[in-house]
Amino acid sequence: MPETPSNANTNLDDRAAEFFLDLQDRITVALEKADGGRFREDAWTRPTGGGGRTRALEGGALFEKAGVAVSDVHGKLRPEMAAALPGEGEDFRANGLSLIFHPKSPRIPTVHANVRHIRRGSRSWFGGGTDLTPYYVVPEDAAHFHQTLRTCCRRTDATFYPRFKRWCDEYFFLPHRGEPRGVGGVFFDYLGAGAEQTAGQPAPAARSPREDDPEAMFAFVRDVGAAILDAYLPIVERRRNDAWGERERRWQLIRRGRYVEFNLLYDRGTVFGLRTDGRVESILMSLPPEVRWEYGHVPEPGSPEAASLEAIVARRDWADY
Amino acid sequence: MPETPSNANTNLDDRAAEFFLDLQDRITVALEKADGGRFREDAWTRPTGGGGRTRALEGGALFEKAGVAVSDVHGKLRPEMAAALPGEGEDFRANGLSLIFHPKSPRIPTVHANVRHIRRGSRSWFGGGTDLTPYYVVPEDAAHFHQTLRTCCRRTDATFYPRFKRWCDEYFFLPHRGEPRGVGGVFFDYLGAGAEQTAGQPAPAARSPREDDPEAMFAFVRDVGAAILDAYLPIVERRRNDAWGERERRWQLIRRGRYVEFNLLYDRGTVFGLRTDGRVESILMSLPPEVRWEYGHVPEPGSPEAASLEAIVARRDWADY
Repeated sequence: MPETPSNANTNLDDRAAEFFLDLQDRITVALEKADGGRFREDAWTRPTGGGGRTRALEGGALFEKAGVAVSDVHGKLRPEMAAALPGEGEDFRANGLSLIFHPKSPRIPTVHANVRHIRRGSRSWFGGGTDLTPYYVVPEDAAHFHQTLRTCCRRTDATFYPRFKRWCDEYFFLPHRGEPRGVGGVFFDYLGAGAEQTAGQPAPAARSPREDDPEAMFAFVRDVGAAILDAYLPIVERRRNDAWGERERRWQLIRRGRYVEFNLLYDRGTVFGLRTDGRVESILMSLPPEVRWEYGHVPEPGSPEAASLEAIVARRDWADY
Repeated sequence: MPETPSNANTNLDDRAAEFFLDLQDRITVALEKADGGRFREDAWTRPTGGGGRTRALEGGALFEKAGVAVSDVHGKLRPEMAAALPGEGEDFRANGLSLIFHPKSPRIPTVHANVRHIRRGSRSWFGGGTDLTPYYVVPEDAAHFHQTLRTCCRRTDATFYPRFKRWCDEYFFLPHRGEPRGVGGVFFDYLGAGAEQTAGQPAPAARSPREDDPEAMFAFVRDVGAAILDAYLPIVERRRNDAWGERERRWQLIRRGRYVEFNLLYDRGTVFGLRTDGRVESILMSLPPEVRWEYGHVPEPGSPEAASLEAIVARRDWADY
């Protein structure tokens, strides 16, 4: 692993980095067990500081493309990036794990998750989240995903789930389509950074005092990391034998187009990564393996496809649905 | 067609609008003749002013997806857009034609072209260009495309082709991949706007006096419009019977991923259109019908795919190749 900038709080950075590597091991082992396929690993170094370990599984029995990437990079912030972040000075260190699973079956949802720890000067904070993108919405699956996340959030703070669910709904939204990306999940940032106000953070009144405690927030992120597969894998098991054909595949490929549109037009991590020496293949690992764009495609009124889209657009309170 | 803002120079706006509609007719007729398929037409109106006529052909014998869109929209500029444009005031009118042809055969290149006329207050200008994206580079085809454009440019001004070829190379470039989109063509903007200096324009010393003459630039754009199919269709005819199989198809789908990356990450027209009430389906008509992203795909050294990529990265002077 790369050397770290000298800092009194390096301990938390290193422990977070270690946790992300361990989480990657646990997730890839569990996924290989479910799929039967094998991840291949690329270790890489970033010329301007740090590196990572990217694992990808392609053409599996269940997963057409699955990626779990860990990175630990450091260097100097560009001024326009520095302006948007808490902390002081130009030195940064960013650790994190990102995953995305694109199943072959249109009956199984795509899932994305990310957990990260970023340091700038004396401040550091955790961010992340996970969201589910079904092609055919099954309410009990969406409810299971959200209930698992709600239970996880409540273990740390009663305000977290409703706030982070809403943040997720707002973030994973395609304004040009007027559509959310899927049925959402949770999204959070700047946890443990201290009282400093930052874009996207709630006003101080709505904040929980625990959010300013880096150790408590590290514990929360560890808990979220463990919850990802608890939220997702039971859905895979329920849907893995559901039948599908050409019609469902076409709908899946068209909906995957929305995934690409979101990631390339709006996703902060993607756009930020591509503009700052990020490792291109690790960043774009999120893109689906096969995608379709048809001119002016609209699902037939009353069809299962139209119903799924309506359920997505409605942004329901899935945990209580 | 929508009503136009009252303006002493409306004449040129209306004549340009009429030209784009006529050019759309000529292009779609010629393409239907080559393909055997039929375009379907959507006429649409923009709630905040103007409208357009989009024609799409999908699943043709030669073209998997071909689109030719004309629009004529007007309204108020947002301040951040106004800051980047010549002219004065917030009223604008934008006319144009955009086309993109995605052939089924990986042996036939994709082509994109755009011609447009934009007015803001007392200033108006023409812009546009066309560029070729082969999957398998055939030097004589790239040479034919560029020679046709060079001949067209020279009829108006000797400085145009080398300047606009270079502008195209710079514009259709994916910095995160370090790759041009294809073998280029020409790209130009702000023609006829007068002496006012604008981002992307050459310094006054390199400018031709004809560039400040709106009528001369309208004649140039009409000439470019007519040259698009002269540059492209002979390549289609040469390659339409060339054999291909699964290997070539896979390479085409992977390269189409680069097309999507460019359009969603960098293309000004796409990003501008999506953020300003543009008609989503007409803007995203540019996206290929079917696309693949494979993790870490690199063509085999010495293969035809590797050779094509090298030829693209080299950004040759194709007109003299």
